[in-house]
Amino acid sequence: MEQKRTEVAALGEFGLIDLLTKGFEAKHPTTRCAVGDDAAVVEPEAGQQLLLTTETLFEGVDFDLTYFPMKHLGYKVVTVAVSDLVAMNARPSQLMVSLGLSSKIPVEALEDLYEGIRFACAEQGIDLVGGDTRASMTGLVISVTAVGHAPKELVVRRSGASKHDLICLTGNLGAAFMGLQLLEREKRVLADVANPEPQFKGYEYLLEKYLKPRLRTDVLDMLADEKIVPTAMIDLSDGLSSDLMQLCKSSKCGARIYLERIPIARQTSELAEEMHLDPVMAALNGGEDYELLFTVPLSMQEQVMRLGIDVIGHITDEQEGCHLVTPDGQFMRLRAQGFPEQPAKNE
Amino acid sequence: MEQKRTEVAALGEFGLIDLLTKGFEAKHPTTRCAVGDDAAVVEPEAGQQLLLTTETLFEGVDFDLTYFPMKHLGYKVVTVAVSDLVAMNARPSQLMVSLGLSSKIPVEALEDLYEGIRFACAEQGIDLVGGDTRASMTGLVISVTAVGHAPKELVVRRSGASKHDLICLTGNLGAAFMGLQLLEREKRVLADVANPEPQFKGYEYLLEKYLKPRLRTDVLDMLADEKIVPTAMIDLSDGLSSDLMQLCKSSKCGARIYLERIPIARQTSELAEEMHLDPVMAALNGGEDYELLFTVPLSMQEQVMRLGIDVIGHITDEQEGCHLVTPDGQFMRLRAQGFPEQPAKNE
Repeated sequence: MEQKRTEVAALGEFGLIDLLTKGFEAKHPTTRCAVGDDAAVVEPEAGQQLLLTTETLFEGVDFDLTYFPMKHLGYKVVTVAVSDLVAMNARPSQLMVSLGLSSKIPVEALEDLYEGIRFACAEQGIDLVGGDTRASMTGLVISVTAVGHAPKELVVRRSGASKHDLICLTGNLGAAFMGLQLLEREKRVLADVANPEPQFKGYEYLLEKYLKPRLRTDVLDMLADEKIVPTAMIDLSDGLSSDLMQLCKSSKCGARIYLERIPIARQTSELAEEMHLDPVMAALNGGEDYELLFTVPLSMQEQVMRLGIDVIGHITDEQEGCHLVTPDGQFMRLRAQGFPEQPAKNE
Repeated sequence: MEQKRTEVAALGEFGLIDLLTKGFEAKHPTTRCAVGDDAAVVEPEAGQQLLLTTETLFEGVDFDLTYFPMKHLGYKVVTVAVSDLVAMNARPSQLMVSLGLSSKIPVEALEDLYEGIRFACAEQGIDLVGGDTRASMTGLVISVTAVGHAPKELVVRRSGASKHDLICLTGNLGAAFMGLQLLEREKRVLADVANPEPQFKGYEYLLEKYLKPRLRTDVLDMLADEKIVPTAMIDLSDGLSSDLMQLCKSSKCGARIYLERIPIARQTSELAEEMHLDPVMAALNGGEDYELLFTVPLSMQEQVMRLGIDVIGHITDEQEGCHLVTPDGQFMRLRAQGFPEQPAKNE
C-alpha cells in the first residue's frame, strides 16, 4: 500500500508551521508567549537562572534517514539538545526547532518528526515555543535551541571538580555506538536486497540507546532527593575520554579512571565480539550515550553508590593528566579519540 | 597574491571554536556563563521577560558566497536573528551561533564571518554565549539563536492592533531586494569573465541594505524617549504585504495602506526602472528590509510623524481584509506574494 505523500510546497511555510505545531500547548509556568509571534517570551521566577543551548543536526552526518525512523529522530533531537541543560542540573522548559527541508521530504514525514518531538516534550514538560522552516539545498537539517532553568545555587558547571573528588557515571557506555554499528552493518549487507529484513534480534537495547536515547532527568531527581549537588558535571555526547578531558580542562585537574569499573551492557559486549570490535573502545570513544558524568566529594561515596550510580575513578592534580588504569596496574593516557596511549617511562 | 588557507580539520572542533570565540568578552549584566560549558547561563533582572528567537540560514538559499563577503554575512545573520526581538520592543543581550561547515570553507573565511558577528554584537552590546560547529554535507549553514529582554509591560506583540490605529513604518522599502537583483545581475553578466569588475556605481545604498542591514534599535530608543509603546509590531523580513497580513491575522483586524505613502528610496526606483521592475512590487514583496512596521493609537499621529516615521495607513475591521489604495482610489487586495489583486465587484 502506497503511503500518502503531500509536498511541503502545497502548504507553504506558514501552513506547514501551523500544521506541525498543532496540538502543542504551552503549559510551562514560565512560558508567556509560544509560537505565533516574532519571538517567544519566557519569564523565569525570581532567583532562577535561565540556561540556553543550541544544536544543529545534519542528515548524512548526524543521522541517516535510510534507517532512522522520523518519530525516533524527533525524540532524539530533543534529547541531544536538552541533555546539555540536564548536565548543568537544570530542568528543561522551552524548545525551539528550525528545519531546513529538502524537497524529497513529504509533509507526512515531518508530521512523524513532530510527533516524536511532541512525545519527548510531553515526557519532560517542555513547551515548543518557536522555530522556522526553510528550504535546504540538500538534506534535512534540524536546529534545536533548548531553554531550561535552575535556582542559581544549584547550577552545576564543568569547572568545579577538585582533587580527591569521585568520578561518577550513570547508566552504561558504548551501547549507542554499537547500535549505530549494527544499523550500518545491516544497511551495507542489505543494500541490494529487494525486501530487506534486517537482523536485530537480541540487540534491541542497543538500537533503542542509539535511536531513542532518554534524558537522564531521573538522575537529577535522585540527586535532589538525596541533597547531592555535584561539584562538576557534563553529559556524555562525544565519548567518555573526550568528555572527561573537557571536564578536567575546565576544572584544571587530572583524573584517574579504572577500566574494570566502566559499565558496559551485555548486548554491547556481545555485539562488539561478533563484529570484532573492542567494547572498551566503544565505551571510551563511541559517544552519543547521553549519560551523565559528574564529580562529588569523596565523603559522598556511600550515598552515591546507594543510588546505583557507578564510581569509576577520582580526580587528581592537573599535572598528572587523565589516565585509564588497567586491571594489571598499567596507566594509559586518555585521548580525545582513538586508543589510550601508554605513557613514556618518565611520566 | 594567494590568500592563506587553513583547513578546518587542522584545528579540530574545539580548536576552531576557541579560535573563533577569542576576543568575545561577556559584558552584558545578565550573562552568568558564556562559552565554555554545556549551556549558557542568563539571569534576567526581576520584572524582565526574556525573548528568544532562532533563525537558520542556508548557503545557496539565503545567501550566495560568490558575492556575499563573509564579514558582511556575519553582520547580517545577527541582524536577521535579532530583528525579531527588536520587533517585540526588546533589547538584545545574548547570541548563540551554530555552524554547519563544508570542507571548501577555510578557517580564514570563518574568522571573517566571526569578525562580522563580533562587530554587530559590539554595536548592540550583545554577548556571544554559545554554539557549536559540525560538518555539513554541502554548503555553509548558520543557525543563530538570539536572546533579548524587556520589562514585561513593554513587550509588544503582533496581536494588539485595533480599529483606527495608525500603521507606521520606519525607513524605506524595497532597497534590499533591489540590492540583491543588482548582485544577481552582475553575477550573471560576469559569469564567464576572467577578472570580473561588477558595476555598482550609484547603487551603493542598495548593496548596503542587502548585505549589511542595520538593526532598528535606534527606533526603539526614539519611541521610548517619546513614551510611545506601539499597540502591535512586526519586523519586515518577508515583505510589507506578507508581514502586514501576519500582523492583521494576529490582531484579528484588517488594514488599508496607501500606495503613495509607501517610502521608496531614489536608488531603488532608479535601479527598478533600469531593470524594468516595478519598485512598488519590490517594496510590497521584496522582503529582507528589516525595518519595523507598527501600529499606534490615532491620537499619536503628530508625535509619530515628528519622529520622521511614515504613517502609511490605518487598521480596519477584520472583515474588510487588507488593501492597498491607489492614488486614483482603487482598492487592491494584498497578497502574501505577487501583485495585489483588484477585488471582485461584490467586495
